[in-house]
Amino acid sequence: SADAYLKDPAAIYAESFRIIREEADLSAVPPEAEALAVRMIHACGMTDIVADLAISEGAVAAGVAALEAGAPILCDSEMVSHGIISARLKQQNKIVCRITDPRTRRIAEKNATTRSAAQVDLWTDDLLEGAIVAIGNAPTALFRLLERLDEGAPRPALIIGMPVGFVGAAESKAALLADSRGVPFVTLSGRRGGSALAASAVNALAIGTEGQ
Amino acid sequence: SADAYLKDPAAIYAESFRIIREEADLSAVPPEAEALAVRMIHACGMTDIVADLAISEGAVAAGVAALEAGAPILCDSEMVSHGIISARLKQQNKIVCRITDPRTRRIAEKNATTRSAAQVDLWTDDLLEGAIVAIGNAPTALFRLLERLDEGAPRPALIIGMPVGFVGAAESKAALLADSRGVPFVTLSGRRGGSALAASAVNALAIGTEGQ
Repeated sequence: SADAYLKDPAAIYAESFRIIREEADLSAVPPEAEALAVRMIHACGMTDIVADLAISEGAVAAGVAALEAGAPILCDSEMVSHGIISARLKQQNKIVCRITDPRTRRIAEKNATTRSAAQVDLWTDDLLEGAIVAIGNAPTALFRLLERLDEGAPRPALIIGMPVGFVGAAESKAALLADSRGVPFVTLSGRRGGSALAASAVNALAIGTEGQ
Repeated sequence: SADAYLKDPAAIYAESFRIIREEADLSAVPPEAEALAVRMIHACGMTDIVADLAISEGAVAAGVAALEAGAPILCDSEMVSHGIISARLKQQNKIVCRITDPRTRRIAEKNATTRSAAQVDLWTDDLLEGAIVAIGNAPTALFRLLERLDEGAPRPALIIGMPVGFVGAAESKAALLADSRGVPFVTLSGRRGGSALAASAVNALAIGTEGQ
């Protein structure tokens, strides 16, 4: 019978966070990043992502400050943008994803690249400066962002770099980790990543330790 | 330097599928489900999900036939609905997610349950009959679907059961696996799952083996 399952949303969250804190080894996670790590584990169901998690010093504070300052959140996919709990963004921060913008397809064709990477060129300087960038799908989007920073684009406040997959995901995240161009970052080394993880990192910055 | 990365979308897909087929052990996957397994691995970056993958006999054929018949796709989260590549749905199948429907909140409050589960009650009989159900987030949605089937609701054509997390995910999928109420299913045992996996399963049914 399916009668006995837990239904109350607050109770489900509380029990999830209790299990995560019981099972996950958070000893290597800085105290200010614990809520972020817990929420990311919650999003993927895997406690062992902690070993691959890299959070630059001050990244959490930078992300929280950016959200409080009303910074936009630039997403590489609609899955990321729809995973962000907009009701928890106190400043009604703008959530931007330009993958379906007609200009994106034209840029992608012109540059023989993915639409995910092409839309990074539509993150105009005024959007990019001080923004939170959340990449949860495409390695090419993270590579293109690093190129734009090398070309002199304004610095975002935080890069959440979580592309997933077999081609370029590990490599693009290694490039971010090796030289983040002076930008605070959160990333997950290796092939794992994804929209749910990227969105959960944004949600953690917005929600903090509540309920944990 | 980030200069050398692969940018061409078709080449990225081809190389991804090549690596997956090289590294993943697909020997236990029935031939008709291989493209599905490959696309799910592609979505999460983990070859070892194959060990947890359960596909009922005829599930792939049932899903393909339902899509071709124009069946709606009922999703438990906006992340799932936005992960489905609608351009690849030849029958312009309706993608339904009622999580933000005002009635969903009222049902959730009345039944002291999650909004994810509450919206399952808005999958009316005419929608549910012959539909593809794609659950990528909430265990409570899968539990509630099984309850509705026990209450006599019409049978969907296929249940893609991929809830994720620490409370109820493994249990709800075990309940589906133990007794799918006569409905063909695809599921992933254990805590892993997620919107990207659920959407990738739908996309696999729509796209088939193309590029693989």
